Amino acid sequence: MSRPKALLFDVFGTVVNWHASVIAELERHTQQTKLTDIDWQHFAEEWRRGYMHLTRHVANGGDGPSDIDDMHRQLLDELLERDEYGPIARVWTETDKSHINLVWHRLHGWPDSSQAIRQLHDHAILATLSNGSTRLLVDLARFADLHWDAIFASDMLKTYKPNPKMYLGACKLLGLQPSEVGMVAAHIYDLQFASKHGLRTYYIRRATEDVGVPEGGNAVKTKQDGGEVDYVFNDLQELADHFASS
Amino acid sequence: MSRPKALLFDVFGTVVNWHASVIAELERHTQQTKLTDIDWQHFAEEWRRGYMHLTRHVANGGDGPSDIDDMHRQLLDELLERDEYGPIARVWTETDKSHINLVWHRLHGWPDSSQAIRQLHDHAILATLSNGSTRLLVDLARFADLHWDAIFASDMLKTYKPNPKMYLGACKLLGLQPSEVGMVAAHIYDLQFASKHGLRTYYIRRATEDVGVPEGGNAVKTKQDGGEVDYVFNDLQELADHFASS
Repeated sequence: MSRPKALLFDVFGTVVNWHASVIAELERHTQQTKLTDIDWQHFAEEWRRGYMHLTRHVANGGDGPSDIDDMHRQLLDELLERDEYGPIARVWTETDKSHINLVWHRLHGWPDSSQAIRQLHDHAILATLSNGSTRLLVDLARFADLHWDAIFASDMLKTYKPNPKMYLGACKLLGLQPSEVGMVAAHIYDLQFASKHGLRTYYIRRATEDVGVPEGGNAVKTKQDGGEVDYVFNDLQELADHFASS
Repeated sequence: MSRPKALLFDVFGTVVNWHASVIAELERHTQQTKLTDIDWQHFAEEWRRGYMHLTRHVANGGDGPSDIDDMHRQLLDELLERDEYGPIARVWTETDKSHINLVWHRLHGWPDSSQAIRQLHDHAILATLSNGSTRLLVDLARFADLHWDAIFASDMLKTYKPNPKMYLGACKLLGLQPSEVGMVAAHIYDLQFASKHGLRTYYIRRATEDVGVPEGGNAVKTKQDGGEVDYVFNDLQELADHFASS
């Protein structure tokens, strides 16, 4: 199998560590607002879970905000209406809420991401294919030092993954056949759809992703081993090493 | 006036030197095909002029190829039908023609471009706003070492400059008001339209651009000097120095 000419990267979870970044910022903010009894890890995971559900709903033709910041804000407001988060709702001002909502623009890369992407740059065209907005992805690239050749985002392609318009739209903009393009993600569902539309698939195991997904994480196997993806790596550096040596 | 948060760059002529690059490649190719009596400079300029006319025609709602490679090829074929270029048409094979047509993916940057863009990166979000296609702009960024935060291209925004959808579409994808965005170009017409839609304007004098345009080149003046653009610079390094010092 010849190497793909381009790699498309899922960003949240795959390239940036939203989990640690969001929890750290919530905890820092907590110290200022004196909210000590909240399980911020659970809060962050619930927020993220809401995002996963809502983007999939919109991808399948359902209603929902087309702007990612609006979507995160709607989900944040819904969380704050729950009884368990009443203490937060009573303390956070509008300024707090809008600041916290933009934490998704300030996520740190996984330790291997920046350098691996720099190395991969010699071997393929590298672009995001994310449900984030263009601006969000630009901010993250600058914040986490990620050198992309192009940003493909949900507001550009006018839907969310796993809608086929995302995968096929990005290939078309690159002037490539889907078989010439690889999708890199830490989410098996993303790769299942990428594969369905003819792209090659690179699964990255990330500790915070595909948690509770029976067919995800350590259960993912390559086709050669009877699984459903082309490659499995433990981080992006392993992917970069694979490209450098093959 | 506060600094813009993002700069959008015209690419052909402003950042890359299409003129010298295309002529050099035509001349190199000539040596192989033994076509010695052709004025390649004139040929390259005619080809480029055809492109300028046809993109403006499509921008105003007229018919024309939406793919830039197809457009260049259509214009190349039209040139080769002219009597004066009969000697070329008789010699060039299909392989020659398709290779030459892709010269637009292999243009060198002006000597100041790569480093100036690297320096400007610290001060603003930097993106292309070009009538080229996404793939063409990705290829040029890699070929000429241009570090963009994002590529905005004609196939992404579904029209050509000076259609307002190009300027306003890019601002919207960046989540910015037009007044927060600057347009950088070596073509006064591009800046006239950018200004009409509320963007700030940075004119770059380039020897090969706005040739024969009465209000272009050395005639361009800043608003302060009674002209119509916000700034005039002799190259991108001067623009970078301006951002570094203000």
